[in-house]
Amino acid sequence: MTSVAIVYHSGFGHTQALAEAVAAGVRTVPGSTANLIPVADAEARAAELDAADAIIFGSPTYMGGLSAEFAKFKDWTSSRWMQGAWSNKLAAGFTVSASWNGDKHNTLYQLLTLAVQHGMVWIGLGLPPGNNSSTGSIADLNRLGASIGAMGQANADQGVEGIAASDFKTFEALGRRVAEAAQRWRDEPLAKAA
Amino acid sequence: MTSVAIVYHSGFGHTQALAEAVAAGVRTVPGSTANLIPVADAEARAAELDAADAIIFGSPTYMGGLSAEFAKFKDWTSSRWMQGAWSNKLAAGFTVSASWNGDKHNTLYQLLTLAVQHGMVWIGLGLPPGNNSSTGSIADLNRLGASIGAMGQANADQGVEGIAASDFKTFEALGRRVAEAAQRWRDEPLAKAA
Amino acid sequence: MTSVAIVYHSGFGHTQALAEAVAAGVRTVPGSTANLIPVADAEARAAELDAADAIIFGSPTYMGGLSAEFAKFKDWTSSRWMQGAWSNKLAAGFTVSASWNGDKHNTLYQLLTLAVQHGMVWIGLGLPPGNNSSTGSIADLNRLGASIGAMGQANADQGVEGIAASDFKTFEALGRRVAEAAQRWRDEPLAKAA
Amino acid sequence: MTSVAIVYHSGFGHTQALAEAVAAGVRTVPGSTANLIPVADAEARAAELDAADAIIFGSPTYMGGLSAEFAKFKDWTSSRWMQGAWSNKLAAGFTVSASWNGDKHNTLYQLLTLAVQHGMVWIGLGLPPGNNSSTGSIADLNRLGASIGAMGQANADQGVEGIAASDFKTFEALGRRVAEAAQRWRDEPLAKAA
Repeated sequence: MTSVAIVYHSGFGHTQALAEAVAAGVRTVPGSTANLIPVADAEARAAELDAADAIIFGSPTYMGGLSAEFAKFKDWTSSRWMQGAWSNKLAAGFTVSASWNGDKHNTLYQLLTLAVQHGMVWIGLGLPPGNNSSTGSIADLNRLGASIGAMGQANADQGVEGIAASDFKTFEALGRRVAEAAQRWRDEPLAKAA
Repeated sequence: MTSVAIVYHSGFGHTQALAEAVAAGVRTVPGSTANLIPVADAEARAAELDAADAIIFGSPTYMGGLSAEFAKFKDWTSSRWMQGAWSNKLAAGFTVSASWNGDKHNTLYQLLTLAVQHGMVWIGLGLPPGNNSSTGSIADLNRLGASIGAMGQANADQGVEGIAASDFKTFEALGRRVAEAAQRWRDEPLAKAA
Repeated sequence: MTSVAIVYHSGFGHTQALAEAVAAGVRTVPGSTANLIPVADAEARAAELDAADAIIFGSPTYMGGLSAEFAKFKDWTSSRWMQGAWSNKLAAGFTVSASWNGDKHNTLYQLLTLAVQHGMVWIGLGLPPGNNSSTGSIADLNRLGASIGAMGQANADQGVEGIAASDFKTFEALGRRVAEAAQRWRDEPLAKAA
Repeated sequence: MTSVAIVYHSGFGHTQALAEAVAAGVRTVPGSTANLIPVADAEARAAELDAADAIIFGSPTYMGGLSAEFAKFKDWTSSRWMQGAWSNKLAAGFTVSASWNGDKHNTLYQLLTLAVQHGMVWIGLGLPPGNNSSTGSIADLNRLGASIGAMGQANADQGVEGIAASDFKTFEALGRRVAEAAQRWRDEPLAKAA
């Protein structure tokens, strides 16, 4: 079994709902488990993070960057960094905000930078951009045209019901991609011995 | 009079059309002139750039960053950098690509980084994000929710006709903002002497 | 009088010491005042921030980005953003960490992104890079070669005594530059009427 | 055998020398080959790039970003992107400039963004920061404290002789890391069948 941890902060429920979509995507891959870990529980559940084959980071975009709650988790990870505990694990990231662009790219840069500080290997979204031709629509996968990670959008005056169905599918695709990569990346000492 | 130079590369006409919108915005401000300078002409028209109160940089987003033609201009500006020729001028930037997000943020980071290397002062877009509530629409100013500069979007299979009217207005607003800032920023020795 | 607020988080004293250098630089400019505001006091001292002509943001670089304490301040500023309270003010930024590069650039990108979301105007460091020729040394101003803002470096096992004298001078230069810019940028309606 | 392509632009020889160090690092891993491809030859040698298990991108930092020559290569890769030719390959990056910081971080962001647009998987430097304690020195591996990729520094008035020995070792370590990752990442159908 390969295990994928999804560690996230959700302020108003959007990131929670999308984290669950990522987990659902992980679980479509036979032999993969998904652990959803809110950042508030990360310290108590550090063993799960340390044991994971891949960690997917999720934060809403607040004022152009990581939420303070996610940043608190980020700073806490220095304890794992000093031990090299996450070195060579796979990593990926996702974010959501009200605007279509809205500096989400910047949030994903933070997640990437955190991951490479830990010596992790970054799995991008891996989907072609959707919704960018005259025959496209917001029903397309990757309707925002992201590449570093998954980006979602929901109107500022709406809750989870404001998230497009295509965003849920896009986040599922990220989870599936990371789970498949984790199986490919996992050391297989017996197979190698053969 | 304050002068605003708009130096840009356009591969398929979209950036050209949006650069003209920026220039139109500059010209709505009494006492302001706008010079449109394609990057291919920048070396020959260096004196206009050196004399400008503000320079607005525009590049399409190709493969997640500045077009090669714009990058060639960027490298050429090292000749101005060595003389400090653009130090303390105002700067701003814009980009366009087919995707709604599409790593445009990254292109604007490049333009900002170029500007601060020159010791320039960066004027962001200065518009609240539009199109991010249930009463919003793509007719809103700043429909993509950009902040560092102006972002436009046009479908990959369309020409200039694919650019939303709201994008033209957004780019005009950037030009107007920079022209107003240039008047505020300009040294006014006589007024000060009074 | 023009007022410059310096709002910062310091975990181990380095950022505090450098914030004081920035303030000292502001105070070298006649007609300028500097207010040092730790992020923990920002909410209580919001009126000072709202009244400032310029705000300089300072955060250590922790795990490649803003400290959680600074990020908490960042998120709180959404209350100012909704009112447009800081629109068109000047902004600048600084950071410090143990490594020479150490992803400090990324922290400054966060500060810039925060500023432009508020509609602020960004003042970069404005110093040529030092310590980058065979006749240079770490005694040079801007010994790290930063451009977006001021970068300091102090060894991980040292306190404030580990900060190079040239870093203090570099941070003073940033304060002076912002104070001078604030005077230039300030509306002077009487002078204009003359 | 796994193959690693190193595609780079060198203006004055520094990037060339460091690209060779990366290649040397690749070749320390049994079963790995390294192909050095100057960007000017990339189109003619596209088949080598398409066949590689990993591609390492290298550009000097000019005016805060990719050199124009590298950007031209970047734009050309849209032809590979449309075919998904590099999807799921490994990627990594390196840069060099005269300043210790000097916005090199920004150049690596460009390389990362290019890679994830192609659906590639990003291998960071994976070395702890050196030269950041009172017992450290510029002889340390990763003396600049980079994480996204390898960063080198050479004085502006020096040629290849100005590159520190530790930088050559750091770049070798990047090559070795990517080669090891490529073997781990490679599909091993026979082993799996066993």
